[in-house]
Amino acid sequence: MNLDFDAVRRAQRRLEGLARRTPVLTSAHFDALAGGRVFFKCENFQRVGAFKFRGAANAVFSLSDTDAARGVATHSSGNHGQALALAAKLRGIPATVVMPDNAPRIKRAAVEGYGANIVFCAPTQADREHTLAAVVAKSGAHVVHPYEDWDVMAGQGTAAAELCAEVPDLDLVLAPIGGGGLISGTSVSVKALAPGARVIGAEPAGADDAWRSLRAGRRVTDVKPDTIADGLRATVGENTFGIISRLVADIVRVDDAAIVRAMRLVWERLKIVIEPSSAVPVAALTEHAVDAQGLRVGVILTGGNVDLDRLPWQSVQIDIPPG
Amino acid sequence: MNLDFDAVRRAQRRLEGLARRTPVLTSAHFDALAGGRVFFKCENFQRVGAFKFRGAANAVFSLSDTDAARGVATHSSGNHGQALALAAKLRGIPATVVMPDNAPRIKRAAVEGYGANIVFCAPTQADREHTLAAVVAKSGAHVVHPYEDWDVMAGQGTAAAELCAEVPDLDLVLAPIGGGGLISGTSVSVKALAPGARVIGAEPAGADDAWRSLRAGRRVTDVKPDTIADGLRATVGENTFGIISRLVADIVRVDDAAIVRAMRLVWERLKIVIEPSSAVPVAALTEHAVDAQGLRVGVILTGGNVDLDRLPWQSVQIDIPPG
Repeated sequence: MNLDFDAVRRAQRRLEGLARRTPVLTSAHFDALAGGRVFFKCENFQRVGAFKFRGAANAVFSLSDTDAARGVATHSSGNHGQALALAAKLRGIPATVVMPDNAPRIKRAAVEGYGANIVFCAPTQADREHTLAAVVAKSGAHVVHPYEDWDVMAGQGTAAAELCAEVPDLDLVLAPIGGGGLISGTSVSVKALAPGARVIGAEPAGADDAWRSLRAGRRVTDVKPDTIADGLRATVGENTFGIISRLVADIVRVDDAAIVRAMRLVWERLKIVIEPSSAVPVAALTEHAVDAQGLRVGVILTGGNVDLDRLPWQSVQIDIPPG
Repeated sequence: MNLDFDAVRRAQRRLEGLARRTPVLTSAHFDALAGGRVFFKCENFQRVGAFKFRGAANAVFSLSDTDAARGVATHSSGNHGQALALAAKLRGIPATVVMPDNAPRIKRAAVEGYGANIVFCAPTQADREHTLAAVVAKSGAHVVHPYEDWDVMAGQGTAAAELCAEVPDLDLVLAPIGGGGLISGTSVSVKALAPGARVIGAEPAGADDAWRSLRAGRRVTDVKPDTIADGLRATVGENTFGIISRLVADIVRVDDAAIVRAMRLVWERLKIVIEPSSAVPVAALTEHAVDAQGLRVGVILTGGNVDLDRLPWQSVQIDIPPG
C-alpha cells in the first residue's frame, strides 16, 4: 500500500457529515509578524478537539462490516485514543484503548466518555505492545496505528485538502511533525491541489527526530523527546518517513520557550484555545525559522486539548515567609 | 432620534469591509446541556476582540467630514475605548479617551496602540465627566457614548442581523446587559428578521440594575456593581431602557460562580477565548435560568479580552512548609 491523493479524495467522501469542515482564520497581527498572509486551518475545532479524528474515522469507516464487527484497538493516551473511541462509537463497534496505568485521570475520563474500553499496562513501550497484542489475540480487533496506517494518513490529508480548496494560491504550508501522519497526508494534498507550494514541517527542538532523519537520509530513532509539545513526542514512522523524504521541502526546529510564546500569542490575538503542539509551526513563523516574506502561508493548527488549570506560561510565584 | 431596523441596515452597509462578519459556532455538548440547539455568534473574533467595534465604527463613519475632522472622544477604559480608537484611526481622525489614572497598564497600552490620545482623570464619575467636557470644549470633538448613542446601538444590532440571516427560525436570542446598547440593537434586529423569536437579557446577579428596572417599570440606578463580568458593570441608560422595556421579553440573573463555570466550559468545549461578560448568557442556559428545551437559541458571545495571566478559575494552591 501507499498514499496517493485518490485515497484522500475517498477519505473526504467518507468523512462527509462525520468530521467538521473547520474554519480558516486570519489575523493582521500574525500577517505583520510573518511578513506575509497567514491562513490558520483550525483543527482545534474538529471533533474531539484535534485533527486526529479525521484519520481515525477514515480508518474505522474503511473497514468491511465483518472486520468492523470485531472492533478496533490502539495504544494511545492522547488525541488518537479519543478520536478512535469516538469514531468506533459512531460506527457502533467496540474500541479498546491500551493506556499506561499512570495516564492522567483527565485522559482516561475522555476516552471512557466516548464509550471505549480501557486496558491498562505498565508505562513501557514493551508492555504497551505486549498488552495490545493480547487484546488483538483475544478479540480479533483491527489495530489502528496513530500514524503508520495508510487510511489514517489519508484522513489527516483532508484538512489540507479543505484548506487548499478554500484558500487558493498558497505558497507554503506548515504543519507540525510528531509521528508524521499529518504532514504525510498534508504533503500529498498540497502536491495535488497547490503544486506550486512547498510543505515545511516544524518540530520541537527537544523532539527533533524527523529533522535529524531528513538530514541523515535514514530514520533516526534514538532521540529521547523532551518538549512541552506532548502531541509531538512520537518517533517518525517508516511509512511516514518515506513520504516526508519525497514530498517535504524542509523541516525546521523551534525551542519550547518559543512554542509557549507562540501559543499564548494565538490565544491573545486569534481568541482561540490551541495546545502546545499546534503552536510549533506558528513559532516557526514568529521566530522566522521559516522565511514567509511576501508569501501566502497555510498553517495547520492541530488541536486544542489543554488542561486549563495548568497553562505553560503561568509560573506560580510562591512567597515563603522568612523564619 | 430613536432606533429602527433601517438604521441597522444602514450600519450594515457602512460596516462592510470595516467590521468582520464573525463565525457562528455550535457544540453538541452545549445542545445537550441546554436541551435545544444553540448557535454562538462569536464576537470575540470581532476587531479589537469585541462587538463594541461595530457600534463605535458606525458612529465614527456616520459623521460628516466637517464633524469628523474635529475628532471623537469618550470615557471608557474598556472595549469601547479601544473600539473608538481603532475606528477613528481607520477614518484618519483624532480620538481622545478619558481614562481613570488607576486604569490597568494593559488597557492604556491597548488604546495607545490604536493611536488614540489618553487624558487621565481621577477615578470618580464626576471627574471623568468633567474631564471629558474639558476635552470637548477645547477640541470640539464629537462624544461617542458607549451605549446611549443611537448610532452605536444600530452598529451593535448588526451582530444579531448577521446571526438571523445565517441561522433561520431562531426561537430565542440571548445577550448580556451592561449599559444596554447591545441588547437594544439586538432586539430591533430580531424583531425585524425573526419576529417569532423572543429576546432575553442576561445580567450578573451582582450588577442587576436592568433586571430591577424592568420589574420596577423605571430605571433603578443605585445598584453598586460587584461582579467578575467587568464589561457589564455599567448602569442601563435612558435610551436603552426605553427599548428594553418595549422589546425585551425578560431579563434573567446568574451569579459569578456560574459565570466562571460557563466561561471555562466554553474554553474547554468550543476551544475559544471569551471574557466573563460573554459567559453570562451561556450561564443562563447551563443553569437553566432560561428554558431552552426544544428551542433554537442564538447567543451573542460579546468579546474575548482577558488577562491570560489571571484566569478566574485559578485559585493558586500555596503550600507553606511547617516550622
